[in-house]
Amino acid sequence: MPDFAAWSRAVQARMETALDRMLPAETLAPERLHAAMRYAALGGGKRVRPMLAFAAGEAVGAEPGRVELAACAVELIHVYSLTHDDLPCMDDDDLRHGKPTCHVQFDEATALLVGDALQSLAFEVLSAPISGLHGAVQTQMLGLLARASGSRGMAGGQAVDLYSTGKNLDLAELEFMHIHKTGALIQVAVLLGALSNGDLEAAARAVLERYARCVGLAFQVMDDVLDAETDTATLGKTAGKDAAQGKATYLTLMSPREARAYAAELVADAEQAIAPFGTDGRRLAEIARFIVERRY
Amino acid sequence: MPDFAAWSRAVQARMETALDRMLPAETLAPERLHAAMRYAALGGGKRVRPMLAFAAGEAVGAEPGRVELAACAVELIHVYSLTHDDLPCMDDDDLRHGKPTCHVQFDEATALLVGDALQSLAFEVLSAPISGLHGAVQTQMLGLLARASGSRGMAGGQAVDLYSTGKNLDLAELEFMHIHKTGALIQVAVLLGALSNGDLEAAARAVLERYARCVGLAFQVMDDVLDAETDTATLGKTAGKDAAQGKATYLTLMSPREARAYAAELVADAEQAIAPFGTDGRRLAEIARFIVERRY
Repeated sequence: MPDFAAWSRAVQARMETALDRMLPAETLAPERLHAAMRYAALGGGKRVRPMLAFAAGEAVGAEPGRVELAACAVELIHVYSLTHDDLPCMDDDDLRHGKPTCHVQFDEATALLVGDALQSLAFEVLSAPISGLHGAVQTQMLGLLARASGSRGMAGGQAVDLYSTGKNLDLAELEFMHIHKTGALIQVAVLLGALSNGDLEAAARAVLERYARCVGLAFQVMDDVLDAETDTATLGKTAGKDAAQGKATYLTLMSPREARAYAAELVADAEQAIAPFGTDGRRLAEIARFIVERRY
Repeated sequence: MPDFAAWSRAVQARMETALDRMLPAETLAPERLHAAMRYAALGGGKRVRPMLAFAAGEAVGAEPGRVELAACAVELIHVYSLTHDDLPCMDDDDLRHGKPTCHVQFDEATALLVGDALQSLAFEVLSAPISGLHGAVQTQMLGLLARASGSRGMAGGQAVDLYSTGKNLDLAELEFMHIHKTGALIQVAVLLGALSNGDLEAAARAVLERYARCVGLAFQVMDDVLDAETDTATLGKTAGKDAAQGKATYLTLMSPREARAYAAELVADAEQAIAPFGTDGRRLAEIARFIVERRY
């Protein structure tokens, strides 16, 4: 069995191939829009959400080939959200994955349409027949992805982030924001990965939800630590941006040392949650550890 | 059987109630986002796409209650596209349905998130169980809606519109744009309305596709005529905008009289297409005629 570094590289390579196949060709009209969609979605990103989907699939015994559509759908939602988040009226960022952001490389209207069309593509991809999967389960997966993406999920979290800039949030408010802004999509990545193999029993679903909640928060805690402590070149996106924009982060509530300890605690909780999966949950555990140990 | 005016008012009232129920309450966090989503989606609009869905449902014998989810999903996509289309980086419009546009009433970032979240909500709504409908048909409906919304449908048409501003388009190029920008969603409204009753035979689908193609183009031809000939107060949106922005319209290629004749020809073709439905296709025929006779 490959070690985690090899496994995660394999997931990244698989995702690059799969997304390349799913994204319309640059030669297809409207060419500029398709070029910009490919620019935003290909050749960058850690692919953490797809890793989670494949690892959750592994935990329930799903073939990776069955998980691929779900992994791509979740990643397309993630890429669309980054593209819109970088727009001038939102975070106004000009660097992403070490490249100019989509609206800088193309233009603002194109970046808006890129995000819109990537969201549609996510649902189109997840509507393709998954062999052997019951239509009702797939409809359930589509509903979970839609809810996680919308105003009571990711887009809602973005709104809370927007409206709380310059305000002091307490820990509960900060976590409410993150559970929506990044947590919802991380959770749905885990659930869809597992559901690709068929409907889940309530106990297994509860285990995966607890795991995902911990991993999602740990990921955000470390994002805040890295945003404050790492240089732009290593990060591949503008460092120190949150503090500069007056955004509430974990580091406005605790020291970097406390934040790292909190992330480690969340990861331990995540690992404990998936103990029932035994060795089948190995990749899920590795991802949880990767999240606190990563440097970008 | 109610006349067309009464029937269309009943559809509008039904849609207002259904959308009100499906949209998250303004009292639910994030309150400002939910208030803005409701502002954009409720209390305005002709609801032409829902009318088409209900009429297509009637043509194949579907209960209106089964069509409602599809009608709402398509309308939510339409409202999201208007909200994004009105943004400063796109058409930069400040009036819609006789009210300030969403980014004027709220702010630009909120309007961006409103569109994003309404798109997610459309897919969430269409993922809810439709009683008696096979999961595979519903997955097919979700896939059709996603494709019609994305880069090879509506968003792609927006991109063509954007990139062709200030250029001279010939009739073929203009129709390519409209078939994507407005035609794709009109077609999917018709198809989803009919599919709400179960899978369609190829012949019935072909009939509905031909009808929808003609109606979609007729709608756009009349939009161009009305944009040029009607005042802002009657239209409820800024009149004369297309010409002012150097956009290609049917009136750059033909006289208003020729455009009206062309729309009438398309409507006659649409009526002929649905002849096989007999009296069950009555509402579809009435909508086609309404589209050329409407004054706003």
